[in-house]
Amino acid sequence: MVYLTMSFNTYRVLFVTPKFKAPLGAPFYFEEEQMYIRQAFDLVKMTAGQTGRNPAVGCIIVKNGVIIGIGAHLQEGSAHAEVQAIRMAGDATGATLYCTLEPCNHTGKTPPCTEAIIQAGIKKVVFAVRDTSLDDTGIRYLEAHGVEVVHAPDAAVSAFYDAFFISKEEKRPYVTLKLAATLDGKLADDFGNSKWLTNEASRQDVHRLRHQQDAVLVGRKTYAVDEPKLDARHVSEKVPIKVIISRTGDVTLHEADITSGQRIIVISPTAVRHAETLITQDFRPARLLELLYQAGISRLMVEGGSSVISEWINQDCFDEVVIYYAPKLLGGTLNNRFYHTEESRMTHLRLVDIQQFEDDVRLTYRKGQ
Amino acid sequence: MVYLTMSFNTYRVLFVTPKFKAPLGAPFYFEEEQMYIRQAFDLVKMTAGQTGRNPAVGCIIVKNGVIIGIGAHLQEGSAHAEVQAIRMAGDATGATLYCTLEPCNHTGKTPPCTEAIIQAGIKKVVFAVRDTSLDDTGIRYLEAHGVEVVHAPDAAVSAFYDAFFISKEEKRPYVTLKLAATLDGKLADDFGNSKWLTNEASRQDVHRLRHQQDAVLVGRKTYAVDEPKLDARHVSEKVPIKVIISRTGDVTLHEADITSGQRIIVISPTAVRHAETLITQDFRPARLLELLYQAGISRLMVEGGSSVISEWINQDCFDEVVIYYAPKLLGGTLNNRFYHTEESRMTHLRLVDIQQFEDDVRLTYRKGQ
Repeated sequence: MVYLTMSFNTYRVLFVTPKFKAPLGAPFYFEEEQMYIRQAFDLVKMTAGQTGRNPAVGCIIVKNGVIIGIGAHLQEGSAHAEVQAIRMAGDATGATLYCTLEPCNHTGKTPPCTEAIIQAGIKKVVFAVRDTSLDDTGIRYLEAHGVEVVHAPDAAVSAFYDAFFISKEEKRPYVTLKLAATLDGKLADDFGNSKWLTNEASRQDVHRLRHQQDAVLVGRKTYAVDEPKLDARHVSEKVPIKVIISRTGDVTLHEADITSGQRIIVISPTAVRHAETLITQDFRPARLLELLYQAGISRLMVEGGSSVISEWINQDCFDEVVIYYAPKLLGGTLNNRFYHTEESRMTHLRLVDIQQFEDDVRLTYRKGQ
Repeated sequence: MVYLTMSFNTYRVLFVTPKFKAPLGAPFYFEEEQMYIRQAFDLVKMTAGQTGRNPAVGCIIVKNGVIIGIGAHLQEGSAHAEVQAIRMAGDATGATLYCTLEPCNHTGKTPPCTEAIIQAGIKKVVFAVRDTSLDDTGIRYLEAHGVEVVHAPDAAVSAFYDAFFISKEEKRPYVTLKLAATLDGKLADDFGNSKWLTNEASRQDVHRLRHQQDAVLVGRKTYAVDEPKLDARHVSEKVPIKVIISRTGDVTLHEADITSGQRIIVISPTAVRHAETLITQDFRPARLLELLYQAGISRLMVEGGSSVISEWINQDCFDEVVIYYAPKLLGGTLNNRFYHTEESRMTHLRLVDIQQFEDDVRLTYRKGQ
């Protein structure tokens, strides 16, 4: 147990976590686990969006109250967080290892973490989230080898891994539908004008969202007309994989995309020049998701026009809807309404977040009541 | 100057006010004026929505650091806040009077406040907001009679009086358009079903808004079909004046409305039984506002269906738009979209407030970019 006297600000942040204890008259304190798990989670936030179908994981190794190892899983195929941290630690005999996700016990592209932990002489493992996607949990194996294992649940860390579990269990990318609309639900006016509907601050925030994605999907028409960059240039150099849907195969890549060296996937019934083509005759969203998962994509943002958005909602192929509302009204015809159906059809959502960007508002919803 | 040691919470609230000073190393303090003006403003918040075309005003009289008089303007025609406070004070010789709005210097339904202040022997007047609607400011008159006058501006108090000044200067009610919609901008599905679109917490909040209004306006169809109560029963017994628009005069009051004894105004080309009828052939919103102001209404909430809302927006006859977004999507035809025009027509708004009611979100906008 570490005792800390904390400022009011720190107190407020920690008060929301279930493990925080502040008995009357005692100094504010919280359990050691909580602190190191949060530090490991900081590593997760740094690497989220760059680990493909693998989860971002953070790991901290502590000995005698001093951090001796720090690790994060950086990319699909590279060393796991635990292994990175053990390498940094050198002699980790008798140390405690904190990690955001339960250590794996299986040999995939890398050897199992449990083995590395045992060999390093680590005496205790504290983890925040159980990896329900594993057939074989490593806990029993670790305990059988004399390692104490503690599950220290943390709501924020759990929420982060939702997308990973959904993706891994359903073998499809976690899908975020993103759109920018007027208050009355139009993506553009009747003539298709939509440029600068939302403000600079919102557009910058879209880049933050893109930075966390493996891929961004648009329809052929949006790709042809808007020539969207679909990058995250306001926040990083990362360019998520561009995914273009073409039911006819009639799509020509823009010169800038051909020369960029960035990965571009076209889903089409026939091969498309200069692009990695996923060939299919079946364009239902569920099939597209299957193909994209096979291509290594576990977080997908759909930035379609109104047909794509409406189809994905109606086919129930989404996890999250992010709407940027510009402080504007447009009216007009049914054209370019972000959601359209033949007749009224109620879809229920759950509000999970509200953000303000000057006069724009970003609302985030998840599926279900 | 009064010095106070304040808790962290109080500090946060006051930090936003321009007059608050907290030099390093000194105890937190703020000027006396600020404190009493805020207390006077508390009285305003209590009485807002019950003073008709008059502004709600709060007044505090202080002598030797003790409050000796408290006053608020309660209803159109009744004594002004300053007069109420002076009556309570008894002997106010040498006292300081704090009020939210500059004291009047004119004889309307009541004698001028300036005269009462001078006769009471008050030596200093502190007010927050200049009454720009007055031809004759009372300041010079007070000063000529030896009263010290201090203008202590306060952003929150100023913002409150916006509606009053707009109403008085333009001789029309301040107009709030209120609506509850799905995220894609529908008030109801294609068959007109709209009941319980928003949740209980949002509906209760609508009652809070109504409590602050003089009147609530609906179209004839909404009145006939929905039989709306349009009251504030979840927060108070106040029933704002019901205003019903009927272009044909073909409207029958519901039995409950006839027997309630509450004021109901019908705007119609011919007299309507059991109702106070404002007769006109001209149903443009601007004309309706003129008639309603003459009938004593200075704060009007329009709770129309999509025709009324769209017409009032398109005719630029509104000050504020309050949208409750339910976490739902509906799609369907153009029917029951909250905003419709023949062709796209951009209206720019300014975001002024965001509130969350469980999964519903209330966004408040004012006119203009």
